[in-house]
Amino acid sequence: MPFTPPTDSVGLVTPQRQCFSEPLTLASGRRLDSYEIVFETYGELNQERSNAVLICHALSGDHHAAGYHDEVDAKPGWWDLYIGPGKPIDTRRFFVISPNNLGGCAGSTGPRSINPATGQSWGAQFPLLRVRDWVNSQAKLADALGIQRFAAVIGGSLGGMQAMRWALEYPERIGHCITIASALKLSAQNLAFNEVARRAITSDPDFNDGNYLSRKSVPLDGLALARMIGHITYLSNDLMGEKFGRELRRGSFALGQESDIEFQVQSYLRYQGERFSTSFDANTYILMTRALDYFDLAREYGDDPAAAFSLAQCRFLVLSFSTDWRFPPQRSREIVDALLAAHKSVSYAEIDSNMGHDAFLLPNARYQEIFANYMSRIHRDLGGQY
Amino acid sequence: MPFTPPTDSVGLVTPQRQCFSEPLTLASGRRLDSYEIVFETYGELNQERSNAVLICHALSGDHHAAGYHDEVDAKPGWWDLYIGPGKPIDTRRFFVISPNNLGGCAGSTGPRSINPATGQSWGAQFPLLRVRDWVNSQAKLADALGIQRFAAVIGGSLGGMQAMRWALEYPERIGHCITIASALKLSAQNLAFNEVARRAITSDPDFNDGNYLSRKSVPLDGLALARMIGHITYLSNDLMGEKFGRELRRGSFALGQESDIEFQVQSYLRYQGERFSTSFDANTYILMTRALDYFDLAREYGDDPAAAFSLAQCRFLVLSFSTDWRFPPQRSREIVDALLAAHKSVSYAEIDSNMGHDAFLLPNARYQEIFANYMSRIHRDLGGQY
Repeated sequence: MPFTPPTDSVGLVTPQRQCFSEPLTLASGRRLDSYEIVFETYGELNQERSNAVLICHALSGDHHAAGYHDEVDAKPGWWDLYIGPGKPIDTRRFFVISPNNLGGCAGSTGPRSINPATGQSWGAQFPLLRVRDWVNSQAKLADALGIQRFAAVIGGSLGGMQAMRWALEYPERIGHCITIASALKLSAQNLAFNEVARRAITSDPDFNDGNYLSRKSVPLDGLALARMIGHITYLSNDLMGEKFGRELRRGSFALGQESDIEFQVQSYLRYQGERFSTSFDANTYILMTRALDYFDLAREYGDDPAAAFSLAQCRFLVLSFSTDWRFPPQRSREIVDALLAAHKSVSYAEIDSNMGHDAFLLPNARYQEIFANYMSRIHRDLGGQY
Repeated sequence: MPFTPPTDSVGLVTPQRQCFSEPLTLASGRRLDSYEIVFETYGELNQERSNAVLICHALSGDHHAAGYHDEVDAKPGWWDLYIGPGKPIDTRRFFVISPNNLGGCAGSTGPRSINPATGQSWGAQFPLLRVRDWVNSQAKLADALGIQRFAAVIGGSLGGMQAMRWALEYPERIGHCITIASALKLSAQNLAFNEVARRAITSDPDFNDGNYLSRKSVPLDGLALARMIGHITYLSNDLMGEKFGRELRRGSFALGQESDIEFQVQSYLRYQGERFSTSFDANTYILMTRALDYFDLAREYGDDPAAAFSLAQCRFLVLSFSTDWRFPPQRSREIVDALLAAHKSVSYAEIDSNMGHDAFLLPNARYQEIFANYMSRIHRDLGGQY
């Protein structure tokens, strides 16, 4: 039986690849002489080339944001709920570009790629990146695709940080900045969780100081642990309680016969950790979390976020979720306050959800409605038909 | 210069040791044929033997709750702020007994002890314990010391769980139960953090399935990681922010010269982790967290905490701290609600503090006052003079 994607899906998609032979100078001062970016697109670029939208992914995301890769692809892209015909990012209206970030492990140039200088994979020698490096490389991709200006740059979590940086670095190239479940910078607690997650990876003997690829060892345990720690912070306490409670994995509470997994939540976390550890790259994980750590939108603007945002020319939509304790609503209100102080146009909504940080990826009627309405306004402002 | 302890200190203390040759049957059905409990005492037992108070320690605590071990002991006992002459647990009034729990690593029989059956240290073969096993062994210690009834059993966190279990198991032997920053059982999120911490230890190759002592290896990295994870949950988000903010360890933000420790909070966590890993025992950590996981006061009472508490004859003081997110005030209110439903006498206070779960160990004027007043009432009820 042939594969029939749902009618509100973008359907089968094929990743594309753009090679860049012009060097990219990084925030660290180091340089990538050449690099490649893997990306997907959904929808059609209009004649005015004005309806392009950029999707920025978060820590463990990639370019596969919507649709299906093949007829046996069990899971659609990570933001398939929000990208597609009739969905908030409506692919009948917008031309959506979704790249895998540099330093990633899903096809763009990163630690698993070959370092032309050595002929070996970069591994831990891959340059550290900052959020602005992603933004700059995304701008190069836009150049290559003939996109002068994005109708919107959109992202959740670390993706929201990229969207904000876009607004400052390329003010004339972005119409709207949509930042969801994000923050101006990490809190000390956020930094602490990242530190522990990295430490879990680096203390795994199979990590070998990041040179595991050449030794054919992979720090599976460390990466699984890092993911388990992350997962706890992505889910709300309430949701964990509802989802797992203290349910035992076996029917009864067997005294004296304890296994090392008794509770459902343990089993869930181990599954998540193991699945991640066999698909993600440890050096990429370290690189991405360090970019998160260092992100501080206002650092170079005298630590004044309003001064930073005064450079922006776009309009903003800021969204947060009530039980998100990784980037709680308070962190989004800091963004909003700074935007208002900079006299920028900003819409803000705090959305009730018991889903924690992960809410930005999950179904939620009010989130979908607000997001869809905002995108419709963008479309209308572009002169789009209804 | 001779050592002069502060005047409100219990001064120099010497740990004592009680050996038990009668077997202890454990909740798991296994048996310890003989065991030892190390403990300290502060103050004097009165003639009526009515002024004894039992201190139950938490996850990483031990018997050294107050005073100094010797003249160069840089740090007093872990609850020295609250135990001493003129302090809430006033040693001029009470005879305080503070044991190291079975399964611990500070002198009581535990994984580091010799298993008489093998002549080798128990290691991972040490029997798993439940909170009730600690309570039962503490009762044996009380017997040995000629204490028929405790004026109060007092504990924070895991210690508070022991105090509640005391109220149900030995209702006629406890006058007051004081449970601080505790809960009727762990939440799924609590379980998840424990799971990750244990996993950090067990996936350290030096853990060797718990048989590290005989191999002269110690899972330092795993234990340090476990402690780092724990530390994040002991501190409030606010406190972490105030204590460390995003302060850099070096004076400036050196682009392209990143070290792997840039932020103060990273440095703090690593220090805490390393200090702990060289002093604590990994098998004990696993055993203690599993006792925490399994604790569920009401499980055998039809999951009805009011039915459980209906067995109690003592009075209760329940305290919680506003920014404690490990055992938030809501968890203490569940205890209070169940006590009220069981028609028990209970005093409850939620104390404002920005210190998170650790608040129960730290200075706080309102906490000290409420605690001291309650203890004074106990003393008065015993017929004590003022």
